[in-house]
Formats: sequence, structure tokens, C-alpha cells
Amino acid sequence: MALRLGAIVEALGGELHGDAALGIDGIAPLESAGPSQLAFLSNPKYQQQLASSRAGCVIVGPAQRALALARGACIVADAPYLYFAKVTQLWKRQRAAVAGPAIHPSAVIDPSAQIDPSARIGPLCVVERGARIGADTVLKSRVTLGEDCSVGARCLLHAGVVIGADGFGFAPNAGAWEKIEQLGAVRIGDDVEIGANTCVDRGALDDTVIGNGVKLDNLIQIGHNVQIGEHTAMAGCVGVAGSAHIGAHCTVGGGAIVLGHLTLADRVNISAATVVTRSIAQPGHYTGMFPIDENSKWEKNAASLKQLHSLRDRLKAVEKSLEQHLKSLEKP
Amino acid sequence: MALRLGAIVEALGGELHGDAALGIDGIAPLESAGPSQLAFLSNPKYQQQLASSRAGCVIVGPAQRALALARGACIVADAPYLYFAKVTQLWKRQRAAVAGPAIHPSAVIDPSAQIDPSARIGPLCVVERGARIGADTVLKSRVTLGEDCSVGARCLLHAGVVIGADGFGFAPNAGAWEKIEQLGAVRIGDDVEIGANTCVDRGALDDTVIGNGVKLDNLIQIGHNVQIGEHTAMAGCVGVAGSAHIGAHCTVGGGAIVLGHLTLADRVNISAATVVTRSIAQPGHYTGMFPIDENSKWEKNAASLKQLHSLRDRLKAVEKSLEQHLKSLEKP
Amino acid sequence: MALRLGAIVEALGGELHGDAALGIDGIAPLESAGPSQLAFLSNPKYQQQLASSRAGCVIVGPAQRALALARGACIVADAPYLYFAKVTQLWKRQRAAVAGPAIHPSAVIDPSAQIDPSARIGPLCVVERGARIGADTVLKSRVTLGEDCSVGARCLLHAGVVIGADGFGFAPNAGAWEKIEQLGAVRIGDDVEIGANTCVDRGALDDTVIGNGVKLDNLIQIGHNVQIGEHTAMAGCVGVAGSAHIGAHCTVGGGAIVLGHLTLADRVNISAATVVTRSIAQPGHYTGMFPIDENSKWEKNAASLKQLHSLRDRLKAVEKSLEQHLKSLEKP
Repeated sequence: MALRLGAIVEALGGELHGDAALGIDGIAPLESAGPSQLAFLSNPKYQQQLASSRAGCVIVGPAQRALALARGACIVADAPYLYFAKVTQLWKRQRAAVAGPAIHPSAVIDPSAQIDPSARIGPLCVVERGARIGADTVLKSRVTLGEDCSVGARCLLHAGVVIGADGFGFAPNAGAWEKIEQLGAVRIGDDVEIGANTCVDRGALDDTVIGNGVKLDNLIQIGHNVQIGEHTAMAGCVGVAGSAHIGAHCTVGGGAIVLGHLTLADRVNISAATVVTRSIAQPGHYTGMFPIDENSKWEKNAASLKQLHSLRDRLKAVEKSLEQHLKSLEKP
Repeated sequence: MALRLGAIVEALGGELHGDAALGIDGIAPLESAGPSQLAFLSNPKYQQQLASSRAGCVIVGPAQRALALARGACIVADAPYLYFAKVTQLWKRQRAAVAGPAIHPSAVIDPSAQIDPSARIGPLCVVERGARIGADTVLKSRVTLGEDCSVGARCLLHAGVVIGADGFGFAPNAGAWEKIEQLGAVRIGDDVEIGANTCVDRGALDDTVIGNGVKLDNLIQIGHNVQIGEHTAMAGCVGVAGSAHIGAHCTVGGGAIVLGHLTLADRVNISAATVVTRSIAQPGHYTGMFPIDENSKWEKNAASLKQLHSLRDRLKAVEKSLEQHLKSLEKP
Repeated sequence: MALRLGAIVEALGGELHGDAALGIDGIAPLESAGPSQLAFLSNPKYQQQLASSRAGCVIVGPAQRALALARGACIVADAPYLYFAKVTQLWKRQRAAVAGPAIHPSAVIDPSAQIDPSARIGPLCVVERGARIGADTVLKSRVTLGEDCSVGARCLLHAGVVIGADGFGFAPNAGAWEKIEQLGAVRIGDDVEIGANTCVDRGALDDTVIGNGVKLDNLIQIGHNVQIGEHTAMAGCVGVAGSAHIGAHCTVGGGAIVLGHLTLADRVNISAATVVTRSIAQPGHYTGMFPIDENSKWEKNAASLKQLHSLRDRLKAVEKSLEQHLKSLEKP
């Protein structure tokens, strides 16, 4: 399979310097791309790799035009990383020639489910009673879409995803737990991508809601009645507890935990492995993470940390004692 | 679908004030419930929402009776949250009219498995050789129940659950790992609920044991030979390493990690994202979590934390030096 | 089912003291093994349990020979834990009599996939276009092996594993996210074991690579373009972000997070729940974990931690002030 440079700029725009007839048979990182491959430079930090790259053609921004021209063929685009993303899409479309049936015969689909004819349901998926699936949405293999849950248009749900399992709700009853049946559903907007084995629970009474353009990585847990604003992205292994409301355009790093019933404003960025224990009203970057260290050093610091509050008191006492002493000397 | 208020108190008890013939067509939170919906007030903190609620009827405790009567229809119950839980169950039973076959034809069931006729096995489940499933237990879609593993009565296993994968056991062998075959199984008690994509590994020699009434949320990992006492509940993304013994009536917050070979007493509560590194003999509430902060402040504090042990030594030195100095002044 | 002691040493070597005809019907821990069971002692710490063990035979190292002989039957082996591992394998082989078809009829296999005839594919697995599976490799139930991904020989993939879902790659585009199609695949070496519901994402351009002999526990997330060196082992719930390169013979504890684009040398050991935020060039043991404490104590220490940097400054100020004062007294 090959794409001519000319076909790429025809499809995606950009300013081609070089032979439009040159066939590209792959996309590769700048440092490893060969003469028949396309590479890109988006971060000026890696600019020095440009001159020595053997790539057949390089996508660059306007600021790197001169440098790139000095090397050889290039495509100049305003946003090279975005341009690169679109090239990968072009590539994928070329490659995905064989289509297969819209609904794989091994999938188990309830007759009451409403599935847009343009949607694709992969092997061994389960679509339960009353579920709805929008146009051009793809469920890869082994996805479960629960009763009455809906997924918008152009979504991509990877293998093992579970939408609409029961939220975790129990009332204490004489030492045991009485189940609170989860009567809500899950509503997922358009252009949402959900990673492998990620789970989104149905709401207790109201629905759990995932906004348009949200991107969830693998092995994420979204509790019941959570709301996630548009275009928010979460990395792998994140856990969001029940009824948390997360704003739009947020990012949540891998392994972070958001406790229940909290509200996060729009444009909040949470670092990896951070535990969000309170609502956050201001956009910004928030972190809470024990710094890694050699184990022996960590052991000493962790032991001291368990006495930190008393260390603070002792410091206060020393400050006071010293101050009093110095003051006493000033006196006549 | 609608339930008359009269039918609710007939089924669940409680003291109805209002029109028994009133039809309820949904359950909703106090602040959003409409005239045909039922709401509940369990936490007195939200008492002020009661007066303004538009709910058709409100479940309240005896202490809120007067306030609720002043507003309109109500059901007075000793434990309103528990009563609410039971209403959700009543609701669910009404709604789940269409039943389907007890064992979905797409499930793969070994002929040697012993399955109670009242159990229900959903689509695309796998039940291996020698597995046992008790009365009224439900396996939703895509559950795997491994060889020789057993699940008690009235359990609910959500989509993607894996019971009885091999525990993680290897003996070092000249730089490589030699597999220790996992010869035990998993025994799950009665009234256990296990969330989507949660895994419970089989024991190495003895069995992994999950007690009656245990509730596990989604994406939890339970290692081999773990024992979990009755009515213990764990939130999503928890990891319990091999051979940990966790008591009864414990709670473990989301994302917490329990290291292997530890023992936790009954009634221990572990906060979210806490790492349990030692056995806990006393009931109580335990936490270990780096506090979240603005990233720039976290950076400074984290850097200081890596020197905490030396800060403690420096504080000690200052204390001593000051004390000696002050003592020297006392001397004649 | 029973194995004679003679058959065990015949298969695995070791020095048998006792009746070769004695039939063993199970393997059990030293403290609970009965007269028809085999136990082992590998850690000399548990040596005192040996005398009182009721086991029919005990595997011990040369240093425990005398002690073991005084008790009864034993097998002396240079590495008793490794010997025990091999006995479990022998046991498993005996027990796994019924084999079943090499490819379960419920599995969905693309005709273009290349599967060694000795491989075994369990129920409800999905093997996509162009995938390759090596000799004696086993896919348990409900495994997805994505397009063009390959698994070497003698691998074991547990239920729910997803190999080759898309890596998490998006370019920002005017507030939304533009998908970067993931054009690489996953290459898994020989003798790799992957735990239940673990995910290994395909590379963006190049492949994600898992080395020979790697062992991954359950619910692990391996991001795109990660490379894991030979014989590295990771416990449950670990997350490795994209493009991290992890050396050979490393261990990563449960729930640890490795951030993206980092490099870890060979023989690095990461403690459970530790966040690796920088590359590690030296072998060794590294930790970062907030110590668990009673909740009330934790609250005080965590509050102080948020002021640690200013405490350090205050300590510095006190040190300086005291030093100046003491110096001033020395002056004539």
C-alpha cells in the first residue's frame, strides 16, 4: 500500500515542496523514517533531528520551512501535529479495505435495540433491550451495551467495554447490605472514544452522562451518576466515584482517583495518580503524589512524615523560645 | 409503568399519609422529583429541601414526620434509606417483565457444571468444568466462571467478571520465571455482588474465599488465596494482593491497594487510594494519601519531602543547641 | 488422582527419602498438609513448622535434610521452591486429562490469522485479521487478539485479555480531540503470561513490544509503544503509559504507575503503588508511597505536609538566627 504525496495534500491541504508523485508506504518517527516514509516535526525542541532525518518527506510548521527545505521534501502545515493525525486517518481509511458485515453474526442483539444502519457491531458484543446506537458508531469485539443505554454518533468503543452495569449502591441493613436497584441508564454523546475494558455504570435514578467528544483510555471506572463535560480526556486506570461532576476540556492523568459527589470546573488538569478529595472551582493544574525515591531514603522520609505534625509543633516552640530569648536581650 | 402508593406500603410496610390510589411512575432525587414521582429524605442535612420538593410523595423518618405532613403526601419509615432501597427493588421487579431463557444459548457451559435451575446465565458467558452456581444467582453477559469454582445463592456477577483465572505465582529460575500451577479454586458465598470486569484469582493450593454478602465494585483485582469476610464492601479499582485476609464488615475505598499476606481485623475502614502495607488488628479508619494541591505548590512540598528526614535532624540540632545555650545562661 | 513419590522424583529429579510407592493426592502448605499430601519448605524462617507437619512428604533444601529426615519422608532438592513449582506443573498435567478442540467452535477467528496447530484458543475469543499465534500458546476464554498482532510460543493469555486495542492518541484541534489512528501492532515474545482483563495497546506507528518471559498479572494497562524487557514481572493494576521503555528482569508492584516516555534500566524494582515520574538508570529498589496511619493522625500530617516547604524555610531562618546570635556572643 502506498499514498502519493500529491494525494495527501489534495485530501488534507498544506503546502507541498517536493515530488507530488513520490509514493509513501508508511509513517514513521523522524529519527527512524526511511526514504519511502513520511515523518513529522511538531515540537521545535526536536528541530535538530530534522537535518539528519532520512524521511522521504517531513510535515513541518511554517517556522521550520527554511530548515526543512534545506533537507528535502516537506509539507508545510499550520499545525503539523494535527496534520499528522489527519494523515494517520487517511492511512487507516486506505488500509481498512475489507469491511465485513455491519453486525457480526456472533453479536447478541436484543430485537428492541435501535441501531443506526451505518453503525458497526463487532464479534461477541451484547446489546441489551432498549439500547440505542448512533450513526457510524463502532463497537469493537466483546462490548456490552446495557439495557436502555445510548451511544451517540461516530463513537468508538474498544474490546471489553461495559456500559451500563449496575452502579455500586447499597443501604446498610443490620450489618448486611441491601441493594439499591440502579434504575437510571448511561447516555453517551457523539464522537466519544472508550478504551478497552473500561466500565461506565448506569445511574441510580438519573442517568450517567458522558459528553460529546470525551476520550476515555483503557481500564477506567466511571461510577453511577457521574457527568463528564465535553472533550474531557482521561488516561488509563482512572477511577471516578459516583455522582462526581467533571467539567469540559479537563484532563485526568493515569491512575488518578476522583472521589464521589465532587464538582470539577472546566479546564481542570489532574496529574497522574492524584486523588481528588475536594471540589475544584478554578481551572488549573493540580497534583498530589508521593515523590519516588530510592527505597531506603523513602523509608526514612516516610517515617518522618508520620511525625510531621509534631515536628511542626516543635519548630514553632523553637521559634518562640528563640524569639523570646533574643527579645529579652534587647531589654535594657 | 406505575405503582400505586398503596401497593408500595402493602409490600414494604411503613405509614402512608396521602392518597393510596396515587400512581407513582418513577423515583427521583428530592430536588428534581415531580408530582408523579417518589423521593426520599434520609440525611437530616437536606431537610430544608423537603418543603420545596415537588415530589408526589416523600419517604421520611419519624423525626421528619411533622415537616413532611406539612408539605403533602409521605411515607414514614424507621430507616428511610433502607426503605428507599426496597422501593428500588420493587420497581425493578415490576419492570423486568420479559425474562428470557435461564441459560442464554450463546453461553458456553461445560456439561459437568452444576447450575441451579433458578440461576440465570447471560449471553456469551463461559462456565468451565466442575463449576457450581447456586439458586437465583445471575451471571450477566460475558462472565467467565473458571474450572471447579463455585458461586453461592442470590449472587450477581456483572459483565466481564473473571472468576478463577490463575493466581500470579512464579518461582525464580536462573533469571526466568517458572510457573507455579494454581491448583486451588475460588469459593464465593451467598448474596455476593461482583462488579464489571472485576477479577478473582484461583488459589495456588487452597481456595480463594469470598464471604457471604460481600460487595465488590468494578475493576477490582483479588489475588490468589485472599479471604474476604462477610459483608465487606470494596469500591472500584481496588487491588488485593495474594494471601491477604480481610475481615468482615470492612470497607475499602476506591483505588486502595492491600499488600499480600496481611491480616485486617473486622470493621476496618480503608480510605480511597490508601496503600495497606501492614496488618491492622484494630477496627477503625485508616488513611494514607498525598493531599492534592495546585501543581506548583505540590512541587515545592514534594521536593521538601524528599529531605524531610534531614530536616528532622536539623530541627533536633537546633533544639539542642538552643537548649544548651539557654541552660548556659542560667549558670552562675 | 494420585502421584507416587517415585514418579515425582523420576520426572523431576531430587533425592527421595521414604517410600517411593507412597501415593500423594494433593499439594498443601506445610502447616495444613495431611499424610497423603506433599508440602515444601523453602524459607528457613519457617523451619520450626517442619517438625510438627503432618505432610506425607516434604520438599526441602540440603540444609534442612537432617531436620526433615528426623520427621519422616522428604525429597531433598537444591531449590525447593523451584522444585515445588515443577511439582505443581506435573500435577496440572495429570489433572488436565480432557483436552477439547484446539480452537473452540465459539471463537471468532479471521481466516487470515496464522495459528500454530498446537495452540489452543478457548471459547468466545476473537482473533482478528493477520494475527499470529505461536506453538503451544493458550488463549483462555474471551481473549481478543487484534489485527496484525502476534503472540509467541508457550504463552498463556487469561480470560478477558485485550491485545491490540488502539493506543490513546489524539491531537488537539480547536478544543476538540482529533484521533491519531494507531497504525502499529503488538508483538509478544515467547513464554509470556498475561493476566485476566489486562490490556496491551497497539503502537501508534511502531509496535508495542513485550519481551520473552514477561509475566503480567490481572487488570494491567500497557500503553502504546511501550517496550518491556525479558523476564520482567508486573503485579495487578499497574499502569504503564505510552512509550515507556522498561528493562529486563524488572519487577513492578501492584497499582504502580509508570509515566510515559521514561526509560527504566534492567533490574529495577518498583514498589507497589509507586508513581515513576522520571527515568531510572540504576538497578535498585524504588518507592514512593504515603504511609498509612489512623485517619485522624493522617489528617494532621497531611495538613502539615501542605506547608512543608514553608516549614523548611522557617527552619532555615531559625538556624540562621540562632547561629548569628551564638556567633555574636563569641565576639570580644
